[in-house]
Amino acid sequence: MGKLIIKEKILSKNSDMAKQLRNKFKNTLVLNFVSSPGSGKTSILERVLVMLKDKYKLAVIEGDQQTSNDADRIEATGVRAFQVNTGGSCHLEASDVERGIAELGLDLDLLIIENVGNLVCTAAFDLGEDAKIIVLSTTEGEDKPIKYPTMFRVGTAFIINKTDLLPYVDFDIEKCIEYAKGVKPDLDVIKTSCKTGEGLQELARYIEKMIQIKKG
Amino acid sequence: MGKLIIKEKILSKNSDMAKQLRNKFKNTLVLNFVSSPGSGKTSILERVLVMLKDKYKLAVIEGDQQTSNDADRIEATGVRAFQVNTGGSCHLEASDVERGIAELGLDLDLLIIENVGNLVCTAAFDLGEDAKIIVLSTTEGEDKPIKYPTMFRVGTAFIINKTDLLPYVDFDIEKCIEYAKGVKPDLDVIKTSCKTGEGLQELARYIEKMIQIKKG
Repeated sequence: MGKLIIKEKILSKNSDMAKQLRNKFKNTLVLNFVSSPGSGKTSILERVLVMLKDKYKLAVIEGDQQTSNDADRIEATGVRAFQVNTGGSCHLEASDVERGIAELGLDLDLLIIENVGNLVCTAAFDLGEDAKIIVLSTTEGEDKPIKYPTMFRVGTAFIINKTDLLPYVDFDIEKCIEYAKGVKPDLDVIKTSCKTGEGLQELARYIEKMIQIKKG
Repeated sequence: MGKLIIKEKILSKNSDMAKQLRNKFKNTLVLNFVSSPGSGKTSILERVLVMLKDKYKLAVIEGDQQTSNDADRIEATGVRAFQVNTGGSCHLEASDVERGIAELGLDLDLLIIENVGNLVCTAAFDLGEDAKIIVLSTTEGEDKPIKYPTMFRVGTAFIINKTDLLPYVDFDIEKCIEYAKGVKPDLDVIKTSCKTGEGLQELARYIEKMIQIKKG
């Protein structure tokens, strides 16, 4: 069997399960956070979820190859989290989300999925989410949107994190946004820093607006 | 056919081809550079290869999902480079290296493979290399060695890059080294910065020593 055919079979099985998940997520906004390792996804979530947790029912599914560090950090904020250890796999699949909601339940306004740090394979696996939120930090180089265009094509919002480091790194933020919009013109861009707090309230409001749209 | 069996078949075919490559690399030191996207692999290579290029015959195989940016940067230093665009794939495979050496030839003292930015799948695919060199930047969080232990287990050297940013980030470098050595006690650690130049000559000497060992 050719590699491409194998890949298509895996993807098509995942896609079927993602469709079933999407049917279950009628009243739950599901956001799939994707990035390279170390871009600051967990730090952003720690800060933004506390802004939302008293108003909405939230939970987080954390994907990592190993450790429960990220789920522990989220739970320390008072938000429930379920850790998936993917072992040899570089992305979460719909079946991982299925396991997560079996634990967390579906009585949720917002389910955040923090995917494994990877900008390639995570783009291909539908997890039943409403939107993929891409996080890139200012230390990673402004050319990432054109190096990993598949991810940017399937993204809804693009968070440029660690803006506090801009004075110390060679990162042309306007060029980066131009590259990203070249790949996906209607991408929403939010600049954030967990050090200075820049953009975190804007991101919380952005998510809140999506929750309200989802609930109709 | 189960997913695990499919994966094993792909890996075993790759492994056979890697063995054939290793037989061809009798007089060529082959280093497989792995990291997250944006850790600074290309910048390190730009600086270190110019230190070696007048003394040794060098070439680079560059892996990226899209663009030839990295190969263009390497060629600007006067070192030959071959770009592989992996499209949907998050790692290089032995067949990509085979294509690379068909272009670059085997009359080389040193072949550098700059893998796709990914800390999971790149660990599983043998490219016929002598050693995997892991690059992590100080902006990525010190817990990466325990989050991605498979990679650290198969690595020979561990470069901690962007030390110039240490004053501005929360990164406990000693803790990071401790985590890495916990996974692989004999990992060689080199701290580098392309801004201050820290560690780059040390890295060049380290590679030079490996070339000499390989040549016997």
